[in-house]
Amino acid sequence: MDMDQLLAEVADDVRPSLGTGRVADYIPALARVPPNQFGMAIACLDGQHAAIGDAQTPFSIQSISKVFTLAMVLKAQGPRVWDRVGREPSGTPFNSIVQLEHEAGIPRNPLINAGAIVVTDHLIGNRTADQTVDNVTAFMQARSGSADVSVDREVAQSESDTGSRNRSLAHFMAAFSNLKNPVEQVLSAYFRQCALALTCEQLAQAGLFLANGGRDPRTDEQVITAEQCRRINAVMLTCGHYDGSGDFAFRVGFPGKSGVGGGILAVVPRQAAIAVWSPRLNRSGTSWTGSQALERLAARTGWSVFG
Amino acid sequence: MDMDQLLAEVADDVRPSLGTGRVADYIPALARVPPNQFGMAIACLDGQHAAIGDAQTPFSIQSISKVFTLAMVLKAQGPRVWDRVGREPSGTPFNSIVQLEHEAGIPRNPLINAGAIVVTDHLIGNRTADQTVDNVTAFMQARSGSADVSVDREVAQSESDTGSRNRSLAHFMAAFSNLKNPVEQVLSAYFRQCALALTCEQLAQAGLFLANGGRDPRTDEQVITAEQCRRINAVMLTCGHYDGSGDFAFRVGFPGKSGVGGGILAVVPRQAAIAVWSPRLNRSGTSWTGSQALERLAARTGWSVFG
Amino acid sequence: MDMDQLLAEVADDVRPSLGTGRVADYIPALARVPPNQFGMAIACLDGQHAAIGDAQTPFSIQSISKVFTLAMVLKAQGPRVWDRVGREPSGTPFNSIVQLEHEAGIPRNPLINAGAIVVTDHLIGNRTADQTVDNVTAFMQARSGSADVSVDREVAQSESDTGSRNRSLAHFMAAFSNLKNPVEQVLSAYFRQCALALTCEQLAQAGLFLANGGRDPRTDEQVITAEQCRRINAVMLTCGHYDGSGDFAFRVGFPGKSGVGGGILAVVPRQAAIAVWSPRLNRSGTSWTGSQALERLAARTGWSVFG
Amino acid sequence: MDMDQLLAEVADDVRPSLGTGRVADYIPALARVPPNQFGMAIACLDGQHAAIGDAQTPFSIQSISKVFTLAMVLKAQGPRVWDRVGREPSGTPFNSIVQLEHEAGIPRNPLINAGAIVVTDHLIGNRTADQTVDNVTAFMQARSGSADVSVDREVAQSESDTGSRNRSLAHFMAAFSNLKNPVEQVLSAYFRQCALALTCEQLAQAGLFLANGGRDPRTDEQVITAEQCRRINAVMLTCGHYDGSGDFAFRVGFPGKSGVGGGILAVVPRQAAIAVWSPRLNRSGTSWTGSQALERLAARTGWSVFG
Repeated sequence: MDMDQLLAEVADDVRPSLGTGRVADYIPALARVPPNQFGMAIACLDGQHAAIGDAQTPFSIQSISKVFTLAMVLKAQGPRVWDRVGREPSGTPFNSIVQLEHEAGIPRNPLINAGAIVVTDHLIGNRTADQTVDNVTAFMQARSGSADVSVDREVAQSESDTGSRNRSLAHFMAAFSNLKNPVEQVLSAYFRQCALALTCEQLAQAGLFLANGGRDPRTDEQVITAEQCRRINAVMLTCGHYDGSGDFAFRVGFPGKSGVGGGILAVVPRQAAIAVWSPRLNRSGTSWTGSQALERLAARTGWSVFG
Repeated sequence: MDMDQLLAEVADDVRPSLGTGRVADYIPALARVPPNQFGMAIACLDGQHAAIGDAQTPFSIQSISKVFTLAMVLKAQGPRVWDRVGREPSGTPFNSIVQLEHEAGIPRNPLINAGAIVVTDHLIGNRTADQTVDNVTAFMQARSGSADVSVDREVAQSESDTGSRNRSLAHFMAAFSNLKNPVEQVLSAYFRQCALALTCEQLAQAGLFLANGGRDPRTDEQVITAEQCRRINAVMLTCGHYDGSGDFAFRVGFPGKSGVGGGILAVVPRQAAIAVWSPRLNRSGTSWTGSQALERLAARTGWSVFG
Repeated sequence: MDMDQLLAEVADDVRPSLGTGRVADYIPALARVPPNQFGMAIACLDGQHAAIGDAQTPFSIQSISKVFTLAMVLKAQGPRVWDRVGREPSGTPFNSIVQLEHEAGIPRNPLINAGAIVVTDHLIGNRTADQTVDNVTAFMQARSGSADVSVDREVAQSESDTGSRNRSLAHFMAAFSNLKNPVEQVLSAYFRQCALALTCEQLAQAGLFLANGGRDPRTDEQVITAEQCRRINAVMLTCGHYDGSGDFAFRVGFPGKSGVGGGILAVVPRQAAIAVWSPRLNRSGTSWTGSQALERLAARTGWSVFG
Repeated sequence: MDMDQLLAEVADDVRPSLGTGRVADYIPALARVPPNQFGMAIACLDGQHAAIGDAQTPFSIQSISKVFTLAMVLKAQGPRVWDRVGREPSGTPFNSIVQLEHEAGIPRNPLINAGAIVVTDHLIGNRTADQTVDNVTAFMQARSGSADVSVDREVAQSESDTGSRNRSLAHFMAAFSNLKNPVEQVLSAYFRQCALALTCEQLAQAGLFLANGGRDPRTDEQVITAEQCRRINAVMLTCGHYDGSGDFAFRVGFPGKSGVGGGILAVVPRQAAIAVWSPRLNRSGTSWTGSQALERLAARTGWSVFG
């Protein structure tokens, strides 16, 4: 299969949908991004790679960062994090607090906001927020092979300024002793990890270890164990798109994680990692055109994990 | 890989867990089944098959039947059923009614009881309950290649006698006009489809078309389209074990569906179908030892869809 | 105070609101009632009484019957009913099932549908549904002093035909063993008690024992104890209008119970009972103009229990 | 009726219950209060007053303060506050956040924590937290006729240190723009109003205007209108004890407000105000012995608002 041609066909397929959906407007710095951009990149385990459209434009990865901090925590500390966060689909939106009240402050999974905040708290350990952000940035640079991956300070500030809902989640978990560090320290790291800016090309490269049993094919480093890798992919498939996770699995059939910046990382186990970006979102907060593109790519390649 | 040896090793792995978990006690006819039985069978697309333990003992497939009625409805009527049932994980137990009240009587997915009742109603159409049960039985006979697959009348009666919760779900959906036929007609068919008795060998054979893009390798019949097949597998993976679906994906990594009779059907796309049975359940209603066995089999084969 | 003049003034006050609100449309027999009718009657402990408008037209008392069956159960069997039903406001609509799932099939209070169905089941005991309906009818005849109080069979049939939601509630409680008699027997009695037809004059008279410490001033019979009477009034005040109970207490300040037929019974302890009827409802299912009329009467008399 | 004798009899009635219930332990400064204290005071509109037990010991009024800030807001700004807070029982515990998510950040009523935080925010307006606390303190001094009413700084600090749940509620409402001032400013005032310390004698006096149509009988000041007074009493009756409000109305029959410090203020319209204090709580957070004492007082006086 020619990857350049594949992406060209997919891009043709989805062009009519580019005006559909709404840009996230609750983070002002994101609301200003021109909405009709579209980029896509693929990195294959056999070394092939391709990109199309705005694939060299950095965008805010937002919740896609949750996958990488989860990997970092599992690598550093093993399965202890699962005492503080579940791995079940929540059936609720990304920022829901209802489930926390009924379940003693234990978030359903690490890919909703509450769960990702716990993961970041776990990652901080005894470090400062700055050190933690440096570590996450370094990890993303290593995985993407790009020294210029960095936090967009304006976006991070904008998130912090409008982060009432996340503050509420964090204080709620603190009330159940499921946060070890002070709320503002944890959120300071969390808002910045969400504000990491990568291009589609960088993000596809960064996700490739998840398609390869945890080994980074570029550096040949075993980043996480094969079992940890499978488990992250499982959580992405069942929980990666909040209350739209089932539909994404149904239509696309890849483990994936979306961010409200309009990016999606999809993992094709044993094959490839794909990054797609287009800012307009569906009602679950997943890129409208991005998920269409992945659906088309899955149909054209027959790569669905479901046969 | 030698399948007989594989199952022997898996059976050895899980023997210590055989006394763990509790048999479903709310259906008296199921509560009387000797609890420490264990059987497992595998059917591969390349023609290999193997079985171990109580793999020739018929058991009540219960909710596993939901997968087959869903396939029948998709085959007969295409995607219209999705107007009446969603495809998102519910995050709640198998018999929960809470979500229905908040979402206008549309069940979250076809593998929770409410959703499966809608599927059965759809399948009935203008038929009688008896005709519908005959059709489902014939479908299971055809898929399993066994003319002796039949409904266990005693179990069906026991389910009907103790079916208050399912009656409540059905009347609730009727109140939202999401049931077309009378409640007792629909439940009459539903309770009997759940009381179908198959052996592990029969069930593994019956599920093989789901591993094969919808084509039954025994009869060479294209039962459902490849796309329908992928979608059923996706729904099984995200929703097949109620509020334990995420954990099953995390630990096992196959699309699967459990029944409170203690059976589990697992589908390995492009490879095999596996049936396992052991009556003791975990708190989500999935066979304790059965899910352990699938976890071990996944580890030994490396067949996880997640790499 | 001249009661005739009081009612005349109140009727003047509320005339502009007569076109506001919507008639209950889920029970066809109720949907056909001419919507702009208005009647009001008052019966005082000092023997005064007055009526205005359509106060001699019988209407379907619906949920107002719940107050009388509760009194009958307390009279006959004392506080045992409180083991099966709570006395807390539910904070939810009249037909909600959510709370039942979280609280093991025990309804929050006897004035929501689920709770009233339990009360009727309790009242049935070992009787038939027919005998129970006869007893309730006789009780209403005795309290109202009118032998012509009877069940409107057409309304009862209409309720049964469209009673899916109530069937769901009843089966749900049966699943938790909080219903002793078969669901259809209980509902047969329940639908008929709701279809009792009284005029405002009859209803005001019937409720007078609740303003008088449980003693019927017409017959001098101590129907229930003074403590039981206070408790019924308390439950009416906190729970009598579902998720509009707080607003009714806030604006009117009397214990009261509304029905979707458009009637409201209000009790002024130590003073009077008032019945008002007008079919158009607010979004909580309470008569729009009826509650306005009671608010005006409370303001004109200074009778609020809140000073 | 001799008030001294009444209180003596009530105190005798409840003595056996003094060891029952648990002191609130989530605020360390409250957890240290000797648990078996009991005090009660009554102030009548006819000038009678009486006290018994530890009625001269100041205690932390906690949530009872919500009634007074509500009165202050209604006095200063009229009904506008009802745009930001409802008046329905919530059916949930004092610190629940579930309802807020489903109802766009509008608390159900002003006597749950979320609602009271909104009231305090409203009361602050353009003032500082310190000015607001000074105003509340001055109001309590005026109502109680005691210049020595003040905030217990240690308790306030303890509440702030352990106030994660209240912080979560406040940030949640801020996310819905239902908080006008910064969260920490509002909470700084809120924690201090809750830490006001009064004796039973002072509190009974302070609540007397609520029994008197809004007029303070000591100063002859019309503090709030008669209508506002009735409405506060209505909200107290339906919502004053969280998910135990119905039971309190059922057993006691007075508008009342409890605090986790063990105090209860009860209002008998047109008659008296009563303050009772005993630190051990029932599971709804209301003083165990305090509510027993009010139930006995209601039974002995026949003062229930329900006849």
